[in-house]
Amino acid sequence: MKQFNILTLDTLPSRYRANLINSCTGYKSLNLIGTQSKSGSQNLAIFNSIIHLGSQPALIGFTSRPLSTQRDTYDNIRDTGVFTVNHAQKDLIANAHQTAAKYPSTTSEFEAAGLSPEYLGAHKAPFVKESTIKYSCTYVNEYEIKENGCIMIVGAIQELYVPEQLIAKDGWINLVEAATVAGIGLDGYVLGKKVTRYEYAQPHLAPKIL
Amino acid sequence: MKQFNILTLDTLPSRYRANLINSCTGYKSLNLIGTQSKSGSQNLAIFNSIIHLGSQPALIGFTSRPLSTQRDTYDNIRDTGVFTVNHAQKDLIANAHQTAAKYPSTTSEFEAAGLSPEYLGAHKAPFVKESTIKYSCTYVNEYEIKENGCIMIVGAIQELYVPEQLIAKDGWINLVEAATVAGIGLDGYVLGKKVTRYEYAQPHLAPKIL
Repeated sequence: MKQFNILTLDTLPSRYRANLINSCTGYKSLNLIGTQSKSGSQNLAIFNSIIHLGSQPALIGFTSRPLSTQRDTYDNIRDTGVFTVNHAQKDLIANAHQTAAKYPSTTSEFEAAGLSPEYLGAHKAPFVKESTIKYSCTYVNEYEIKENGCIMIVGAIQELYVPEQLIAKDGWINLVEAATVAGIGLDGYVLGKKVTRYEYAQPHLAPKIL
Repeated sequence: MKQFNILTLDTLPSRYRANLINSCTGYKSLNLIGTQSKSGSQNLAIFNSIIHLGSQPALIGFTSRPLSTQRDTYDNIRDTGVFTVNHAQKDLIANAHQTAAKYPSTTSEFEAAGLSPEYLGAHKAPFVKESTIKYSCTYVNEYEIKENGCIMIVGAIQELYVPEQLIAKDGWINLVEAATVAGIGLDGYVLGKKVTRYEYAQPHLAPKIL
């Protein structure tokens, strides 16, 4: 067993530490966030920090790194109030990864990464046509994580698209069948296997598979 | 393709909506958070909202539901300033799920769920002995998500334990080999397969597998 502490972590080369700390928090949700600038430039970027915040109202959150450098996704969301979230899926891994490259603001990462923008519903933010689970959000609020300058953006789900055959009778979505990808660290892409669902846990009852 | 919008979502039965919205955000990190009350009662609870916030300093965040009901984990963290995060792994799925049952504050979920507390390092929060990747954190700050009363707790990693054979030369941890589990929705447990890592993405270079 390898042991690190707050002092030894500090002495690690920064890339090693970034890989280690980014991996130790477990699997990450991987999604492509689509936005559009006021002047109509399309933007697409992979994010590994989307979390569920609530289902009534349906709220999600994600963190953006400090605003000290170019942050097209953040700027576009603030300017237009809308964005889309598109699952990174098996056949799209290389494309999704490529959106992380630092392109100029005027370059569409859709085009650069070989993905197709499509507009669905009422909002002017581009979806990824090739992605099979996706939703649009409106900007609701943001919280600055003062400890390091990260911003947590809160969005409200507006329109959600899911292939019908992936939805269980009780609304649960089979992401393994969807071939949705999870992340490890900054650069690892993983498929799921062997889903098990359990019934609602209760004291004095053994866990029971659904 | 099934389409939901903010109006139709509102008309769904609450359990269906909770399953749907909790699944559509992608795979979740699944971890057991270990704490201890001031009077020494041990607590263990599964959380699916841990995220990476930064690696220098090493910060993580997780959300706790509104404080209107009993929240032992939150109370213990505020009272003692420390907690542990332990990966939910393949052989521990049923035990991890069972910690979600509503036990009285004086019941140890370690005991109720058949897991062993162990104390490592300087801090008085119990780890899960059976978990192979785990770390302790000190409480740093919290942010109330005003939109629904959730609390995001920020913790600083103090001591990190990872089996050496799972760590790549560059610090990346192979969670698939670790049999770490990801979550779908509120009750789905998934194993990983087929990891692919990519080199740092650059404009004008095709994505390259590491």
